Amino acid sequence: MKGNPLVSIVSAGLSKFGKHEGMFAREIFTFAAKEAFERCPKLDPKNDIKAMFIGHMGESYEHQGHTGAAVADWAGLLNISATRTEAACASSGVALRSGIFAVLSGLADVVMVGGVEKMTHRNTEEVTEYLAMASDYPFEQWHGITFPGLYALMAKAHMHKYGTTESQMARVAVKNHYHGSLNPKAHMQKEITIEKVLSSIPIATPLKLYDCSLISDGASCVILAKPEIAAKLTDNPVHIIGSGQASDTIGLYERRSLTSLLSSKLASRTAYDMAGINSKDIDLAEVHDCFTFAELMAYEDLNFCEIGKGGKMVENGETKLGGRLPVNTSGGLKAKGHPVGATGTAQAYEMYLQLTGQAERRQVNDAKIGLTHNVGGSGSTATIHVYRSD
Amino acid sequence: MKGNPLVSIVSAGLSKFGKHEGMFAREIFTFAAKEAFERCPKLDPKNDIKAMFIGHMGESYEHQGHTGAAVADWAGLLNISATRTEAACASSGVALRSGIFAVLSGLADVVMVGGVEKMTHRNTEEVTEYLAMASDYPFEQWHGITFPGLYALMAKAHMHKYGTTESQMARVAVKNHYHGSLNPKAHMQKEITIEKVLSSIPIATPLKLYDCSLISDGASCVILAKPEIAAKLTDNPVHIIGSGQASDTIGLYERRSLTSLLSSKLASRTAYDMAGINSKDIDLAEVHDCFTFAELMAYEDLNFCEIGKGGKMVENGETKLGGRLPVNTSGGLKAKGHPVGATGTAQAYEMYLQLTGQAERRQVNDAKIGLTHNVGGSGSTATIHVYRSD
Repeated sequence: MKGNPLVSIVSAGLSKFGKHEGMFAREIFTFAAKEAFERCPKLDPKNDIKAMFIGHMGESYEHQGHTGAAVADWAGLLNISATRTEAACASSGVALRSGIFAVLSGLADVVMVGGVEKMTHRNTEEVTEYLAMASDYPFEQWHGITFPGLYALMAKAHMHKYGTTESQMARVAVKNHYHGSLNPKAHMQKEITIEKVLSSIPIATPLKLYDCSLISDGASCVILAKPEIAAKLTDNPVHIIGSGQASDTIGLYERRSLTSLLSSKLASRTAYDMAGINSKDIDLAEVHDCFTFAELMAYEDLNFCEIGKGGKMVENGETKLGGRLPVNTSGGLKAKGHPVGATGTAQAYEMYLQLTGQAERRQVNDAKIGLTHNVGGSGSTATIHVYRSD
Repeated sequence: MKGNPLVSIVSAGLSKFGKHEGMFAREIFTFAAKEAFERCPKLDPKNDIKAMFIGHMGESYEHQGHTGAAVADWAGLLNISATRTEAACASSGVALRSGIFAVLSGLADVVMVGGVEKMTHRNTEEVTEYLAMASDYPFEQWHGITFPGLYALMAKAHMHKYGTTESQMARVAVKNHYHGSLNPKAHMQKEITIEKVLSSIPIATPLKLYDCSLISDGASCVILAKPEIAAKLTDNPVHIIGSGQASDTIGLYERRSLTSLLSSKLASRTAYDMAGINSKDIDLAEVHDCFTFAELMAYEDLNFCEIGKGGKMVENGETKLGGRLPVNTSGGLKAKGHPVGATGTAQAYEMYLQLTGQAERRQVNDAKIGLTHNVGGSGSTATIHVYRSD
């Protein structure tokens, strides 16, 4: 039935995002797992959790694949059914969705989903190359284009078509850095100014340094349960009431539109329909701001505003804390940080805090319905989840 | 209820295993998808298939991750919900299990699961390095040990403890090459002799060249449906009646036993229990013979024979076509080939052929119950599935 819980979140955990020098991904994940276990004292992790899905994007960073089994062991869940999922920067968005399937299957009543990435020990050239592996090898990577370049093409097309400005994009950075300044786990907790964004060095015009999300280490997880079981484990569950996922061509060059992500549109329509809501019902959202422009495009794709009006929406302050629809209260990928495999379930973690009233200085008042939007590559994967408070 | 179908396989496809020069993984996958679509003319792939899970082990081979979306597009399923799963050589074993969850969830009545790998364009040193990424980086890879070395340690321990001989291991190779000679899609379709195995060059003593599985390109898939839907799509479905998955430490050095895989034992017990069978009910099996020794160990872990008697079992011809419990009638990883991401669902493809009486020269008479056993790494992941004919 529409609006009924598919599954319930009984707990969540997040490591500090930033630099974790000298640690492996599996070690960083223990911070997230420990927090999740401590938040839910009635849970007996080793006996109750029946399966794990772990988003992890790249084997190249640590010369380490097979991350599901490794992370399970380090989290104290040795011998569990543990699977790594990968869909570029949506790796843990799809882990979350896989975990929902597992709980709904009836074969695993309690499931841990999460994600992790260790990136900061690599230099920028290496990280840029490893990230680019999520784009089309023969038709994109081979020719030297990287993700800043791909998103710059989209941003330019949007500017040309709708009059979106660099100053509007800069406002996304300013807003998300403000939100990040209220999040003690954010990689960057400093406010910045529009001038600072606009005068930062060009990465791929029109995108400048402060239009880009951060290269971070970090891990995140949420624990999902059948709603009846969740009621026994916690007094304040958060329910997932909609889940959508869609794909698109891996190459940007093959898309019909450069100014919109079809995968985001399709996945959000599926999730809205399942949840029995429309975008007006949403109280807050975490969207995939890998670049400032991507957040503006998300407003439009998710139907938060009319097509072409994303720039206006941020300019009017509608998506700032206190606005009509606060977006990326965590600081987003821009300020909280973007350890790629961890991002999807880090968004779910923020929803868990907000919808249980635990978001402290960045709490959205009366938050009842939330949405997360996690994108892989230049939009070849998008996952959308809709949450409601108990 | 025990023995009832969890899901039903309505079709399956397999590319030729071997060298596919000048093709990308996503192109190789189209051979598997095309066969699966053609085998099930009542299926309308674009409308009926609601999700995909694709096993793919390494981004390094083709400098290409994000394989779920790419493969979906090339298979003609653009915009579908598509997720890559990775658990080393069990990458598509876990894809199969994730697909079962999806069908059982009620959110996706028909799901395609599969796997793919393109390996032969890389030299042996590169392949060995990329495969090693599935072992423990700081405690194994760093010190130079590779998978032949890890399995050699296990083989040596087994020889020491139970008197298993190199000649018994060689018999696995001879048997599987005989089976491969009957499979037109096998990478190697030539029979070999015990002498040839025993005199082949040492790779990691006691394992010699002919004790090792092949480096291959290839793709595989099966299409899963809710049993009620399957009945409308095909007259000869194969039912999956048991599914188990377990993990273990990523490092071999931490295990309590070197002569047995706990993950295989745990996953098989789960699957047997779910299926309501014991190992005596199994008519044929595809097991993970990445090295000849691994097949002998599998006999023991899956309870096909007593502990320590794996060598005897192959020596007595029990697992050869015509024997009590034919194992790896496809030729196995040893002769059919081992495009790592494709192996798990290639095993399921063989079960589909055998249990629908379409295995031609290698058909097992009266095959009613089958099992597949897919292992990742040195046993940090194992998945087991139990199948029965309609």
